[in-house]
Amino acid sequence: MEKLASFFNPRGVAVVGASREPEKPGHVILRMLLENRQRGVLRADVYPVNPNADSILGVRCYKSVRELPDSVDLAIIVVPAKFVPEVVLELGAKGIRSAVVITAGFSEVGNVELERELLEAARKAGVRIIGPNCIGIFSPWSGLDTLFIPSTKELKDGRVLESAPRPARGYVALISQSGAVGTAALDYMAGEGIGLSHFFSIGNKVDVDEVELLEALRADHSTRVILLYLENVRRGREFVKVASEVTKEKPVVALKAGRTAAGRRAAASHTAALAGVDEVYNAAFERCGIVRAADLEELFDFAKALLYQPPPRGPRVGILTDGGGAGVMATDMAEMLGLTVPELRGWAREELEALQRKGVIPGYAPIANPVDLTGSATDEMFTAALTVLLSSDEIDSVLVLSLHQVPGIPDPVELARKVAEISRRFDKPVLAVDTGWSDAAVLMRREYDRLGIPAYPTPERAVKALNALWRFGSYLLRKGSYSSYMKSYLEFREKFVTQKP
Amino acid sequence: MEKLASFFNPRGVAVVGASREPEKPGHVILRMLLENRQRGVLRADVYPVNPNADSILGVRCYKSVRELPDSVDLAIIVVPAKFVPEVVLELGAKGIRSAVVITAGFSEVGNVELERELLEAARKAGVRIIGPNCIGIFSPWSGLDTLFIPSTKELKDGRVLESAPRPARGYVALISQSGAVGTAALDYMAGEGIGLSHFFSIGNKVDVDEVELLEALRADHSTRVILLYLENVRRGREFVKVASEVTKEKPVVALKAGRTAAGRRAAASHTAALAGVDEVYNAAFERCGIVRAADLEELFDFAKALLYQPPPRGPRVGILTDGGGAGVMATDMAEMLGLTVPELRGWAREELEALQRKGVIPGYAPIANPVDLTGSATDEMFTAALTVLLSSDEIDSVLVLSLHQVPGIPDPVELARKVAEISRRFDKPVLAVDTGWSDAAVLMRREYDRLGIPAYPTPERAVKALNALWRFGSYLLRKGSYSSYMKSYLEFREKFVTQKP
Repeated sequence: MEKLASFFNPRGVAVVGASREPEKPGHVILRMLLENRQRGVLRADVYPVNPNADSILGVRCYKSVRELPDSVDLAIIVVPAKFVPEVVLELGAKGIRSAVVITAGFSEVGNVELERELLEAARKAGVRIIGPNCIGIFSPWSGLDTLFIPSTKELKDGRVLESAPRPARGYVALISQSGAVGTAALDYMAGEGIGLSHFFSIGNKVDVDEVELLEALRADHSTRVILLYLENVRRGREFVKVASEVTKEKPVVALKAGRTAAGRRAAASHTAALAGVDEVYNAAFERCGIVRAADLEELFDFAKALLYQPPPRGPRVGILTDGGGAGVMATDMAEMLGLTVPELRGWAREELEALQRKGVIPGYAPIANPVDLTGSATDEMFTAALTVLLSSDEIDSVLVLSLHQVPGIPDPVELARKVAEISRRFDKPVLAVDTGWSDAAVLMRREYDRLGIPAYPTPERAVKALNALWRFGSYLLRKGSYSSYMKSYLEFREKFVTQKP
Repeated sequence: MEKLASFFNPRGVAVVGASREPEKPGHVILRMLLENRQRGVLRADVYPVNPNADSILGVRCYKSVRELPDSVDLAIIVVPAKFVPEVVLELGAKGIRSAVVITAGFSEVGNVELERELLEAARKAGVRIIGPNCIGIFSPWSGLDTLFIPSTKELKDGRVLESAPRPARGYVALISQSGAVGTAALDYMAGEGIGLSHFFSIGNKVDVDEVELLEALRADHSTRVILLYLENVRRGREFVKVASEVTKEKPVVALKAGRTAAGRRAAASHTAALAGVDEVYNAAFERCGIVRAADLEELFDFAKALLYQPPPRGPRVGILTDGGGAGVMATDMAEMLGLTVPELRGWAREELEALQRKGVIPGYAPIANPVDLTGSATDEMFTAALTVLLSSDEIDSVLVLSLHQVPGIPDPVELARKVAEISRRFDKPVLAVDTGWSDAAVLMRREYDRLGIPAYPTPERAVKALNALWRFGSYLLRKGSYSSYMKSYLEFREKFVTQKP
C-alpha cells in the first residue's frame, strides 16, 4: 500500500492537460477536483497544467510540470496520447511518482508501440501509472475524484439531471478494467445504498494492475470487501498468490467477462485483453477463494451479503416465510446451488411444535423447514420462530422471507428492526427478502440493509447471495482461517454495522 | 371464456361472510369493492351477505344468499371452511353459478374430506369455483378487485404506507397458485410499470384450474401475454393440449416451483401440490411452447419483452454499445444461452466502415459486433449504427446498450425516443439496457418501456429476455405459426404500443 499511497490519498494533485472547454475531460476533472476541494471533501491541493492558459476556472494555471510546487505527488494526465510518455518523463524529473493516465489511444486501438514507449518512460522516470485508457480514481474517504464523468447532465431545457451519482463512503472497493462498467457500477451501487471505499479504473493497466491494488487494498482500513471487474489477468501466478492471502482477511468477488469465444473477441477489441479459457479462471478463482459473480446484479448482491454478514459454518439453510410459494422457490434455488434445506427433526422441531401448542404459531403452519407462518403471520411469529432457527444446531444460516403484504405485519420497518435485533445475538448469517417496489417494500429492504441484514427483492437473489457467503465460508474453513476472519468480522460489525434501531 | 364470464366481468357481486371488523377479509374485500364501485372503476353492483348485520359500511346487508337480487352472478366466499359447501349449495339454488372461495383450511391443512365435500356441492349445484385457499381476482379492466390485501397499511403513528399497489390496466395476465406470490408479484409488476389484464389466484384449484383459465385468456381481448406461477399441474395432458393452442397466439411464461426434492416437500405442505419430477415439466413446457422463467425477475423481464417486441426469426444478435465491457458481458451471456453474436462480414460491415470513413463513427471504434461506439458515443452514432444493424440480413435482433453516463448523450430520454423511432421501422426485436438507479438511468429505462422498447438494468437480464423471445420465436417457426402471430402482433403494436414521442 505504501508505495501506492499517493493514489489513495495524495497531498497535491496536478491535472496535466487541464482545459477551458467545458466538455473536455481536462475541464470536467479539474472542475470536480476544485469543487470537492472547496466543499472541504478533498484535502489535497489542486493544480492545473496547461502551457496556453494563465488560469482556468479561476485558478492559476502552470505552464509545465516543472513549475509545479513540490507538494504535488499525483498527476492526472489528459493530454493527447502521443505526448503522454514525454509528460511522464517530466513528472519523474520533477519527483512526482504517481500518475493516472486518462488518455485513450494506446494498445486498445492497436498503438502497441506507443504503449510500450509509455511503459519505458514510466520505468525510466520511476513513475507509477494507472491506465492508460481509464476513467480514473474515486476515493470517497479522501475525497479524491478524478472521474471525467460529471455527476449531472444539463438538459436543453435547463433541467439538471442526476446522471452519474457517486456512492457514499463505505467499505466496498471496486477495481474495474472497463471504465464504462465502472461508472455504470457506481451508479448502480449508489442506488443500492452500498458504500464505497475506493474505485480504481485500471484500463489497459500498463503498470499498476489488479494484483498490486489487491495487495494495497488488503492493507487499507476502510476496505472490507473487494470487487473486481476483469476482462483478463496477465500475471496469473502472482494474482493467485496475492489473492490467496487477501481472501483470508477480506472477501473478494470477481466478475470476469470474456467467458465465451465471442466474448473474448469482443474483449480483445475493447481493452486488448487476451482473455484465455474460462475454465482456467474458474479454477484459479476457486483456488484462491475468490467468489465469482455471473453479472453486475450478483456482484453487488454478493458484496452486500459478504459485507454485512458472517459466512456460515455449513450449508444448512433455515427458511422462515409468510408466503408458502416464496418458501418453495427459495428451497429450490438453495438445493440447486448445493445448499441444503434440511427437514427439521430434533430440538428445533420440538420447540416449534411447542410454539404451536402455545398458540404462538398457528397449528396448521408447516414447520418442518421451510417454516411457513402462512398469510396469518405476525411480527411475534417471526421473532419466535427466528430465535428457534438461529438457536438450532441443525441450521447454519437463516433466510427470512418477510413479504410485507400480509395483514399481520402492521409496520414492515418495525419488523425489520425486530429481525435485526434478534440476529445480532447470534453469529449465523441472516438474509432477508421482501418482494415488490411499493413504499412498504422499499422501506423495509432499506431498513434491513441499514441494520446489516442484506435484503433482496426475490428469494432467488437472496439464496444466491447466501450461497456466495457459504462458498467463502467453506474456503475459510478449508484454509483454517475461519476463526481469525470471524474475529475481525465481529469487530467490524461491532464498530460499523451495529446500529441501535 | 363464456362459461367463466362472471369471473371476468360480473354484473353483481355478493360478499358472503361480509364483516364489520376492519381486519377481517370479509370487511377488506367488501370495502375495496364498494370503493371501486364508488370511484366508478367497478361497474358491478356489490352486496354484503351476513345473517347478523343489517348494514355494513353503510350498505344494506342481506341475511342470506336466498334474498340476493337476481342480478348477482358472482359470489366471494369468506365464511369459515366448514360452512363453505353449504353456501355453495345455496348459491346453486339461487342461480348464482360462479364463486371465489377465499377461505382456507381445506386440503392444504389436511382437510381432504372437506375439500371433496366442497367439490361435490359445486358439481351438484352447478357452481364453478375458484379456490379455495386463494386471495381472489383482480381485473383492472372491469374494476373487479376481490383481493383481501388492502393497498395501504396504516402505521401506528398515523402515516399511511403504500403496501400492496395494484398494477394499472394492461395486457399481461397472471395466474398464481400461491396467493402470497401473487400479491408480491403484483407489487413488483406495479413498480416495473407493467400493466395487468387479469390476475387469478387459484389456490387449491378444486374446480377451475390453470387449464381452463388459459383457454379463457386465449379468447380475452385485453390479454396479450400470460404468466403462470405453478407448483403443480394435475391435468397434464389437457394442459399441454390447451397450452399448445394458446401459444400460437399468445406467449405464455411459466414459473414452476417445486423443482428439487426439498422444494417439492415444501410445495406439498403449502398447496398440497404433488409436484412431480422437474424434467417432466421442462419437457412439457418445451413441447407446448411455454417459456420457462427461473424466478420472479425473469418472469416479468420476459413478459415485458414478449409484450413489446416481436420474436426474432433467428438467433443472431447485433450488440450496439457505448461501453466495451457491457458489450463483452452481453456477448458472453448471449453465447452461453445459445444465441449467437456473429462477426459482421458483409454489407453491414461495409456500411459501418463507410460511416467511419465519413467520420460519423470514430475510426477506432470496434465495429465487428459488438459495435462499440466507445465513450465518445453520441446520439447520432447510435441512430446511424442501429439503422445499419436492423437493415442487415446477418442480424435477427438488436441489443442497444446505451449507458447514459457517457458525455455524448446530452439527454438520455431523447436518445431512447430516437432508438424507439428507428426500431419501429423494422420488425426485428430491439431491447435496451441502461445501468444504474440515478434519475437519468430510471427515466431512460422508463421512456424505453413506454415506447415499447423493453429496457433492463443489466446486459445479462436483457439478453435472457431476448433469449426468451427467441425461444418463443423458434417455437412459432417450428409450428408454422410465425406469420400469423406476427400479423396479430403488429396489429397490436400499431394499436397499443406505438405512441408518438
